[in-house]
Amino acid sequence: MDKTIEQQVRDLTAREEIKELTARYCLHVVRGEGEAVVQLFTEDGVFDGTNAGINVARGSQALLEFYKAVREPEQAIPFIHNHIIEVDGDRASGTCALEGRFVRKGESYTGAGMYEDKYRKENGKWRFAERKLRFYHMVPLKTGWAEAARETKSKS
Amino acid sequence: MDKTIEQQVRDLTAREEIKELTARYCLHVVRGEGEAVVQLFTEDGVFDGTNAGINVARGSQALLEFYKAVREPEQAIPFIHNHIIEVDGDRASGTCALEGRFVRKGESYTGAGMYEDKYRKENGKWRFAERKLRFYHMVPLKTGWAEAARETKSKS
Amino acid sequence: MDKTIEQQVRDLTAREEIKELTARYCLHVVRGEGEAVVQLFTEDGVFDGTNAGINVARGSQALLEFYKAVREPEQAIPFIHNHIIEVDGDRASGTCALEGRFVRKGESYTGAGMYEDKYRKENGKWRFAERKLRFYHMVPLKTGWAEAARETKSKS
Repeated sequence: MDKTIEQQVRDLTAREEIKELTARYCLHVVRGEGEAVVQLFTEDGVFDGTNAGINVARGSQALLEFYKAVREPEQAIPFIHNHIIEVDGDRASGTCALEGRFVRKGESYTGAGMYEDKYRKENGKWRFAERKLRFYHMVPLKTGWAEAARETKSKS
Repeated sequence: MDKTIEQQVRDLTAREEIKELTARYCLHVVRGEGEAVVQLFTEDGVFDGTNAGINVARGSQALLEFYKAVREPEQAIPFIHNHIIEVDGDRASGTCALEGRFVRKGESYTGAGMYEDKYRKENGKWRFAERKLRFYHMVPLKTGWAEAARETKSKS
Repeated sequence: MDKTIEQQVRDLTAREEIKELTARYCLHVVRGEGEAVVQLFTEDGVFDGTNAGINVARGSQALLEFYKAVREPEQAIPFIHNHIIEVDGDRASGTCALEGRFVRKGESYTGAGMYEDKYRKENGKWRFAERKLRFYHMVPLKTGWAEAARETKSKS
């Protein structure tokens, strides 16, 4: 059955708001505003960095601990691309690609990966219910990603 | 004459679906899923890589031969940006920018370029009718793109 | 009060047109089409590069002088991401992230930053009323951004 025009507009609006949610995430990260990042999650929100060699943070308190680390402006400059979104009422899921410029131990790092996201609309606002991060590579700019790609390959 | 609200919503929806089409293309490429990439094209779809020093592939069979090469996960990590789309009923055309991280002969390559796309809606789904790829440069990360830019300039 | 469906569609359309405006900006810059870039601004449009160590250009004539510098194709390849937009009738404001590949004195440069934009709809077309550019860094690819990040930090 075809969607009504109201449903279509609701879905389009949801998609726009979800894309903007991921954009705000990036802006707050680059500015080192950890608390503002946490506000983009639901209260029971989860950041799952297991596949990125990072911890899992469940709920506002744990997220706050985790995102404190982004306190320093411009130590992590993330960019979001290739967003795929599936809206189902007040829930949605999606994937998006990540490219980022980082500083680690005083060195320039470059990373590429993806997020698997779950979104939920609460009190009229879309938020992250879960972000699962996976890096394809996170390497010194001088080294490049060829070696990391080789390792991924040999593991798979 | 102004568009009706139905027409506006149809166009907005088409644009969203086309953007997601290019996002899916990237996701399948990075996962090395050549067959899934080909499913995003119409049966008579064309990949034209002439301006990228690659072949032309016309039709599902040729596309399948071509996209088999993306079998290895993370050997090509494409990101799409700057999407411009013109919708005309069940046809559309557009351009989008490409940035990518590649591995060639065991070395880290970085590329930037653009796609000139034609899209067609068939059985309710937008697909690529044609993708023309042009690289501004595709160079080893260690070398950079300055030399490539110089060559483009001397040719033009 | 909830927005009517007409208002929602108008806002969604505005957002799409504004995103495409920034995409067109990039395409004309990469092609070295300075005059076409200026056409994307209102007559009293402003480019403010103060925070990027560049000049301020106010109005079509000054913008034309400024954007003449992009005459050479592929000397500046900008990509736009993380777009946040607030629409208010025929006015809008927004931020978007910038990544770019540049050639300076024959060397490969890489840059990341952001635009703070003001948009205005005139004669049915969204245009830039103001673009404020700030670079987080603009560095030789060989050098990387770690040093630039350190300097930003010590300044803040």
